[in-house]
Amino acid sequence: MKMNICIAGLGNVGSHLVNSIKKNNEFFKNKTSISFNITGVSAKDFKKKRIFDISEYQWFDNPLDLINENRCNVLIELIGNEKGISFELVKKSLEKKIHVITANKALLAKHGFELFEIAEKNNVLLLFEAAVAGGIPIIKTLKNNIFLDNIKKISGILNGTTNYILSTMQQENMDFEQVLNIAIDKGYTSASEAELDIGGFDSAHKLTLLASLAFGSNIDFENNYITGISNISILDIMNSDKLGYKIKLISEAYLSNKKIYCVTEPKLVKKDKPLANVDGVLNAVDIESDHLKSLFLEGEGAGGRATASSIISDLYEISSNSNIKSLGYRIKNLKNYNKFNIDDIESSYYLRFITKDVTGVLSKITSSFKDSFISVEKILQIPDNNNKKNVIPIIITTHKIKKTKLLQAIKQIEDQEFILEKISIIPIHNN
Amino acid sequence: MKMNICIAGLGNVGSHLVNSIKKNNEFFKNKTSISFNITGVSAKDFKKKRIFDISEYQWFDNPLDLINENRCNVLIELIGNEKGISFELVKKSLEKKIHVITANKALLAKHGFELFEIAEKNNVLLLFEAAVAGGIPIIKTLKNNIFLDNIKKISGILNGTTNYILSTMQQENMDFEQVLNIAIDKGYTSASEAELDIGGFDSAHKLTLLASLAFGSNIDFENNYITGISNISILDIMNSDKLGYKIKLISEAYLSNKKIYCVTEPKLVKKDKPLANVDGVLNAVDIESDHLKSLFLEGEGAGGRATASSIISDLYEISSNSNIKSLGYRIKNLKNYNKFNIDDIESSYYLRFITKDVTGVLSKITSSFKDSFISVEKILQIPDNNNKKNVIPIIITTHKIKKTKLLQAIKQIEDQEFILEKISIIPIHNN
Repeated sequence: MKMNICIAGLGNVGSHLVNSIKKNNEFFKNKTSISFNITGVSAKDFKKKRIFDISEYQWFDNPLDLINENRCNVLIELIGNEKGISFELVKKSLEKKIHVITANKALLAKHGFELFEIAEKNNVLLLFEAAVAGGIPIIKTLKNNIFLDNIKKISGILNGTTNYILSTMQQENMDFEQVLNIAIDKGYTSASEAELDIGGFDSAHKLTLLASLAFGSNIDFENNYITGISNISILDIMNSDKLGYKIKLISEAYLSNKKIYCVTEPKLVKKDKPLANVDGVLNAVDIESDHLKSLFLEGEGAGGRATASSIISDLYEISSNSNIKSLGYRIKNLKNYNKFNIDDIESSYYLRFITKDVTGVLSKITSSFKDSFISVEKILQIPDNNNKKNVIPIIITTHKIKKTKLLQAIKQIEDQEFILEKISIIPIHNN
Repeated sequence: MKMNICIAGLGNVGSHLVNSIKKNNEFFKNKTSISFNITGVSAKDFKKKRIFDISEYQWFDNPLDLINENRCNVLIELIGNEKGISFELVKKSLEKKIHVITANKALLAKHGFELFEIAEKNNVLLLFEAAVAGGIPIIKTLKNNIFLDNIKKISGILNGTTNYILSTMQQENMDFEQVLNIAIDKGYTSASEAELDIGGFDSAHKLTLLASLAFGSNIDFENNYITGISNISILDIMNSDKLGYKIKLISEAYLSNKKIYCVTEPKLVKKDKPLANVDGVLNAVDIESDHLKSLFLEGEGAGGRATASSIISDLYEISSNSNIKSLGYRIKNLKNYNKFNIDDIESSYYLRFITKDVTGVLSKITSSFKDSFISVEKILQIPDNNNKKNVIPIIITTHKIKKTKLLQAIKQIEDQEFILEKISIIPIHNN
């Protein structure tokens, strides 16, 4: 069986994909009798230096021309912009009954519904293993492997850059800004794209897709609550460490009372939980279902080689000719869930107060909590020798409390004159 | 789409499966339009107390009668003996073109080749997600998700009972025999079946299946080298801990020079590796491929509910009607690899000497190593206050060395009169 594929976008992922297919075509054929034939490539710059010889492939200046000849069975979209040419190319391919594989999470999170509908109508697949968690086959795990499990909750670390930043802050005792610059130097993100990563938006794009697969929810990026990591201070990381936690950017989704909860925010994670030990640029996903207390997958969340593996796995899925749809569900069976009001969520919290070193501060804080029926779990008053004199950091962890209630109490305390800085509030992960 | 299934064996897994199907049938139907209909059940004892009402199902005293009526599309074999009735039932079902799902690793590891051949010839599937690592979808990950990756190595913790024993020895500072009795009390193993677990045979059955999927090797249980955990002393666990390692029963497979390496043995695993942090009855698998440095899966390795998830995932695979074979490969493409000579393997080692407290002992050991060109990495001489006087434990870790060479040197040292006990030799995991 021969599959003609064309590739739009030849950056890191695209180049590794071309290389892998060239190198492994004999291996694929021996293993499965499938062979892949790259019938066309397109990218911004023909002359750019690449890890493969571009002259071996038919070049198209305009990616739309890739699908204008009839030989192409599968279009692989690796251009990566959120709308514009990526959208047009994917849409036109599907309409021409050409299968599409894409790594473009932003495109699918925001415009996926329309595209998946066109795919289903034209009886072709729109696959996206590479769009979520790089080389981890999390899409196929949810869609093909445990699809008949009743998923209760998904929690993941879905962005390698932010995980690298938080891990490195902790390991090297460095500030957020310092490590962000290192991450840019290392090419994990770029100055212009950093906000997508550190703002939590990239993670939320991916969570949108996972939630749809797990709960049959309509693809709706508006369902996400998102908090980035730029306010996480090295002080909070070090205090969390003393309390037995690491701070991670956790993306979590579950259903409750016919509402969907899709939240990406930095959280304290207990060190004995697998998610706490996901370091550097790795990604991981923890799934809880009616049958499984925990199914945990960890692997490379980015990188050309790992992501190429996911694209090749999608090629294999297309070749397997199963009756499983792109999203597992038929489009008409997807449900519109309302989103939670984040203020109604109960969680335990980590709080950091920076106060004047005067008597009675702690008692004022705790009595204010008592008045608001907030139950304190732990108090840590750490004399910080490096710090200015007359300044005391107080760390408090609470039992579960609604966020609205907590914020009311915090507002009252923040008005007091002994509070020197904005109070740091970070939820504690409870999985 | 309606699928008629019959179930042979109603122990823990079978009972949870019946329960799950009954409870979730509406959920399945809404999600996929598949519905499952249990057309017959069979087990040893009709009257046994079960978590479901047996009278709701058609009972057969003889499991072979399950397939003697034409209504059954899928036979689920959960009887579990290695040959005998399980073999006969699976074989006859496949010959009657009935798909088979089994959790029986011993059956498949020893007689799988014949059965998979019959399945392929009759164009039906013989699926076994539940046979390896309980609720972790490792079979589908290898076979359906990353099948076109060129797998380099698989390392796993595949037996929950032994992992529970080793974890508990460490956490509670208890002897092997003590914890084994607790494991029997908790029902993780039974006195009569314990040898299958602690001898490493159950892990090796599972590794046989993983190796076949990963490397296209013929299913050949004889390819396994197996060492169990009954010689692991609490002293070795505590010493390893001081050196930064945990001791785990690791099952590992890879190809090299057209030979297959399938080894199950206790090993020291560095604490920062994911496999070291797999505690209790959990299972885990770490996969290395040409594309992926590490893909790590962790989850429940046993238990009725988790294992039922894997069986249901096999039902879903059957319903998906893909062209992927039971083992991924066509039977004729499976290769017969010769097995490694374990003595040729290079590994670093942990060694524990119990010696008389006389001068010159350490120098005699190290000079003996020097003569044999064995390079020492670390030496730890721990005065053990709880121990008898005049007895000194010496711990040495080596750099990589062939096992034959190491054993020659060890033999020489063991002949010396200052050595009081058999020298403990445990390889160090290098993944």
